[in-house]
Amino acid sequence: MSGKVNLAESFTRIEKPWSPTIVGELNGQYVKLARFDGAYVWHSHQAEDELFLVVSGRLNIELRDRTVELSPGEFFVVPRGVEHRPVAQPNAEVLLFEPASTLNTGNAPANEWTRRPDQLDRL
Amino acid sequence: MSGKVNLAESFTRIEKPWSPTIVGELNGQYVKLARFDGAYVWHSHQAEDELFLVVSGRLNIELRDRTVELSPGEFFVVPRGVEHRPVAQPNAEVLLFEPASTLNTGNAPANEWTRRPDQLDRL
Repeated sequence: MSGKVNLAESFTRIEKPWSPTIVGELNGQYVKLARFDGAYVWHSHQAEDELFLVVSGRLNIELRDRTVELSPGEFFVVPRGVEHRPVAQPNAEVLLFEPASTLNTGNAPANEWTRRPDQLDRL
Repeated sequence: MSGKVNLAESFTRIEKPWSPTIVGELNGQYVKLARFDGAYVWHSHQAEDELFLVVSGRLNIELRDRTVELSPGEFFVVPRGVEHRPVAQPNAEVLLFEPASTLNTGNAPANEWTRRPDQLDRL
């Protein structure tokens, strides 16, 4: 059984942006923490709904028809198949809930941020 | 597609303790908010791992062999099959993440808190 996780303490050990780090696992889903910094890539996930909860900073989830603006203590679920682009301004600390199978860059062409689930860091 | 959820604002609309309220749904899992107040009942969930994230207040998760003490910004995952008793002191605001099938009082005899998944409130 894993121990408890303190979000603020965990973020002190995560330096690199756009590098989701696994901090919890339950029911085939991962809890991940990530620093978001600037604009990510447009992408979607074919089979995975994805939750973004802002812990600190500000995060815009751009959708093709609108932008969802998130402040600390706010979350949003991007349903599977929906194109989205996270844009953090400034540097933001974000908690993600999503299936363990989720590829961080979704259906976008592989780029410098792409990490397969088995390549993710764990705290 | 649901809108964004502000945790603090949502808790202003939840008054009754021990009454999990659905605020999000993804991948067959629910995000629930609940006020915890005092001692709950010992129980376990046969097929569901359960995440507790404290938003405000303090929550002890008593296990048979130890107690996990949670402050705001801390979470703990109780694996399926593990007996636990939440004890909040004082009133605490808690986010839960668990399969939609989860019965709030688990394997304990039905009591005044018991709500089947289809009986839960939604915000």
